[in-house]
Amino acid sequence: MSMTTVGSYLTERLTALGVRHVFGVPGDYVLGYYDQLERSSLTVINTADEQGAGFAADAYARVNGIGAVCVTYGVGGLKLVNTTAQAFAEKSPVVVISGAPGIRERHRDPLLHHKIRSFESQLSIFREVTCAAVIIADRDSAQRDIDRTLAACLQHSQPVYLELPRDMVDATIELVERRAEPETSDSAALAEALAETAALVAAARQPVILAGEELARFGIYHDLPALMERTGIPAAVTTLSKAVIDETHPLFLGVYEGALGNESTRRFVEESDCLLVLGANLSDATLGINTARLDPATSISVSASRLTVRRHHYQDVRFVDFVNGLAGAISPRPRPHIENPPRPAAWLADRQAPITIARLFQCLNGSLERNITVVADVGDALFAGIDLVVEKADFVAPAYYLSLGFAIPGAIGVQLARPEVRPLVLVGDGAFQMTGMELTTAVRYGLDPVVILLDNEGYGTERPMLDGPFNDVVPWHYAKLPEVLGAGRGYEVRTEGELDDALAAALADRSGYSLLHVHIARGDLSPALQRMTSLMAERIR
Amino acid sequence: MSMTTVGSYLTERLTALGVRHVFGVPGDYVLGYYDQLERSSLTVINTADEQGAGFAADAYARVNGIGAVCVTYGVGGLKLVNTTAQAFAEKSPVVVISGAPGIRERHRDPLLHHKIRSFESQLSIFREVTCAAVIIADRDSAQRDIDRTLAACLQHSQPVYLELPRDMVDATIELVERRAEPETSDSAALAEALAETAALVAAARQPVILAGEELARFGIYHDLPALMERTGIPAAVTTLSKAVIDETHPLFLGVYEGALGNESTRRFVEESDCLLVLGANLSDATLGINTARLDPATSISVSASRLTVRRHHYQDVRFVDFVNGLAGAISPRPRPHIENPPRPAAWLADRQAPITIARLFQCLNGSLERNITVVADVGDALFAGIDLVVEKADFVAPAYYLSLGFAIPGAIGVQLARPEVRPLVLVGDGAFQMTGMELTTAVRYGLDPVVILLDNEGYGTERPMLDGPFNDVVPWHYAKLPEVLGAGRGYEVRTEGELDDALAAALADRSGYSLLHVHIARGDLSPALQRMTSLMAERIR
Repeated sequence: MSMTTVGSYLTERLTALGVRHVFGVPGDYVLGYYDQLERSSLTVINTADEQGAGFAADAYARVNGIGAVCVTYGVGGLKLVNTTAQAFAEKSPVVVISGAPGIRERHRDPLLHHKIRSFESQLSIFREVTCAAVIIADRDSAQRDIDRTLAACLQHSQPVYLELPRDMVDATIELVERRAEPETSDSAALAEALAETAALVAAARQPVILAGEELARFGIYHDLPALMERTGIPAAVTTLSKAVIDETHPLFLGVYEGALGNESTRRFVEESDCLLVLGANLSDATLGINTARLDPATSISVSASRLTVRRHHYQDVRFVDFVNGLAGAISPRPRPHIENPPRPAAWLADRQAPITIARLFQCLNGSLERNITVVADVGDALFAGIDLVVEKADFVAPAYYLSLGFAIPGAIGVQLARPEVRPLVLVGDGAFQMTGMELTTAVRYGLDPVVILLDNEGYGTERPMLDGPFNDVVPWHYAKLPEVLGAGRGYEVRTEGELDDALAAALADRSGYSLLHVHIARGDLSPALQRMTSLMAERIR
Repeated sequence: MSMTTVGSYLTERLTALGVRHVFGVPGDYVLGYYDQLERSSLTVINTADEQGAGFAADAYARVNGIGAVCVTYGVGGLKLVNTTAQAFAEKSPVVVISGAPGIRERHRDPLLHHKIRSFESQLSIFREVTCAAVIIADRDSAQRDIDRTLAACLQHSQPVYLELPRDMVDATIELVERRAEPETSDSAALAEALAETAALVAAARQPVILAGEELARFGIYHDLPALMERTGIPAAVTTLSKAVIDETHPLFLGVYEGALGNESTRRFVEESDCLLVLGANLSDATLGINTARLDPATSISVSASRLTVRRHHYQDVRFVDFVNGLAGAISPRPRPHIENPPRPAAWLADRQAPITIARLFQCLNGSLERNITVVADVGDALFAGIDLVVEKADFVAPAYYLSLGFAIPGAIGVQLARPEVRPLVLVGDGAFQMTGMELTTAVRYGLDPVVILLDNEGYGTERPMLDGPFNDVVPWHYAKLPEVLGAGRGYEVRTEGELDDALAAALADRSGYSLLHVHIARGDLSPALQRMTSLMAERIR
């Protein structure tokens, strides 16, 4: 039996699971643990606001497999409720660590600063947005609490909440030997489900894979091309799982989003008589505002939380085991003839022409280098971004929960998780005004995202649904931000020539962030966004 | 019986209760109600981020008696959890209105965008940080739900949560005649409590009033000078209730904060053998990190939630009735000899001398005009701010819950609630980096706060407790913000002469916000903050 402290044990377990950076803002209830983090092999990343830390940790978790954010009680933790809700809804495994008043301080329920209703209020709130939540209240149960909570984070690929009272950080614990208890599938159920799936595929005229975001979350998307090639089944993705397949793969069908997306993709998917939905969480936002026409009677759908074949369910079959078993179970079949999604036209700037959304994305399509990860915020940044052809690159966006302000802090998380990539941020002016100042965090840690700021003078996504002065924002001179932050480079972009020049300069400049202030005409929406907002406008009331 | 719609009824009730501005950021689930608000007599105030709207509404409620914030579901509402928790903890009556998926959309529990675990998740979360929370799910109960919730907001002077599904906004309701049901005190209990209090005061050698923030929240602080003058009892305030008394009143004892505050105030209050605690919520933060020595055996303590005389409690006595009854119940007594808190020395700039915290506040003390309301953020902005002598002015600060980033959006709320005042914002660099860009909202609505930005290169409050790189922030060139926002005026202040000139120019300039970037040496803390942090350092672990 070895001795350690609660704080050290938590740090050691986070490290063992792959965490290398912890995002957050310090405060007095968590200073002791911050001090310990500074002495550990983990790197503390301080953001300007806790919201930024939450978004950064979410993005980090999406590409790294696990992420962590550490803040103080109340004023810190409660700023993370929205970002944690997004991670929960989109299956991002974020460990939320909150400092708290010491257990010894809690007797007789005193009014300590930052406290709300009771010492359990914050725990109760986080229960709604995590898959496991605990206050580490006792040294005897600390190891079990930490192990169980971190295991749930990975098992469900969802956020968890660990509250660390400040007098527990240095509390000594005796480690007991941990029995590895890997969750296993019921092998008979697994075999039956695979056999039934294989039979349905064999009998089908046009089987199709709908590849979801959980393939990325559980780290098994690399095996997808082999599955497609061996079985001859083509695959589409959703807006939330864009980039789990190299989009130049010959069996790639495109991004399926009901009537909102590419028509040949829609037809091929909806005409399928055997749809394999692998780890996709289907919602109104990912399914084209309910224009999708998918038939449960001919679908096999598997995720971390359930396995459904047609109208019946299997228990105790792990998502990863089922997906890994498919290649061996399904008999190869001839590859169908498919129309690959349209390739973007080559980009040649008409240098004096004012820049439009369509032309901007055409330009970006021609400029995406292999080390680029696109991080898209909500709005046309996302909806037009969906049509970018992503090749060996990655694409990170909150395509279901749709929280504005994700992309700038998200890019910080992405680049820290994968130092070899360069984030290309697509963000609207409304979203930038929420969290754009987190560029200060890029400055602080020497990161160099390229920010494409789409300025269409307000909340452009809402105007076509219902317009009013509430959709306006103050026009900032975004390109002057480097003067305030003392670093980075800003560019004004009004024409195609200016875009060409600024993008080339930004991609060549690795000294810090670049910000391209792209002036879009107020009514200029991408075709995707036009289709989406006209459908949503019908539902405003 | 008259007919109206749910949305119109809510707007009408808010207006009748004194709301004139509604803060928020629109989103598709609330666009319908925003459209209705735009057509009403209420003014919509759009902030850059929902957090800013939450803080602005909190400050507005503190000085106006009620405030409102209106956002969309999930991505909007959940960004308000922290600001609402602060309003709850500090008794600020904020009405939180969240748009939501329509009731008809909720059948069969579909995955609609922005949804978390269930359609009740957001309600459950807000139950923890409000005194009443409801989903308006039904036209038959809508009027009762709205009436009951708004009544609770005013009765407890705490936030409430109203969730407005988008298909309820235009739902027609028949108004029933509302019976006014004013909450009344049990008159026998009230009489007994007042008589007992009067007897204890009469028998006491040195009765003292500790005047709390609820006197302001319930709008009865105006009567306090008359009570003091008639009974001859002097009064102190807490950090949370600073400015409920004109601090030049001859019976004003000062701000009581245990060993942290002025010594003569501490002595007079702690030597009292009959302490009348009127509407003060006493916590570690307001009581000098537990250095206060107050004896419950000789105290009478009344608030909206309880009335305690020595060690026993009275039920059903309203706070307002008890306080209003004191002047008639207590027999006049000779005024004691008291030492008024020290008046600040006259300010004369030593023009070349580098500016220090102590000298900055000495200068401000000499410059506070009568129409100034000080809005203090957390840090030395608050702790040194407590020592400003406030005369006929107001002072707004989150002195218990202590959420960084309150002051800039708070100033917007204050000036909209009271157009005749000019906010003087005291804010540190760490807090400014969280929410300072809400100055964009001041630009948008033509407000002109004077911002004193205390730049001590990071989280100066934490350094003396436990220092590390996590207490640093990137040094922004704050005075250049007007170039980004396209409005306002920035000043660099390093010497006393520059302070004099900049402050005079800022006070004379009513064209927009002024931002004074005051460079403080890194280790320069006010005496109040030095005492506080050395006490708090003992509790880090």
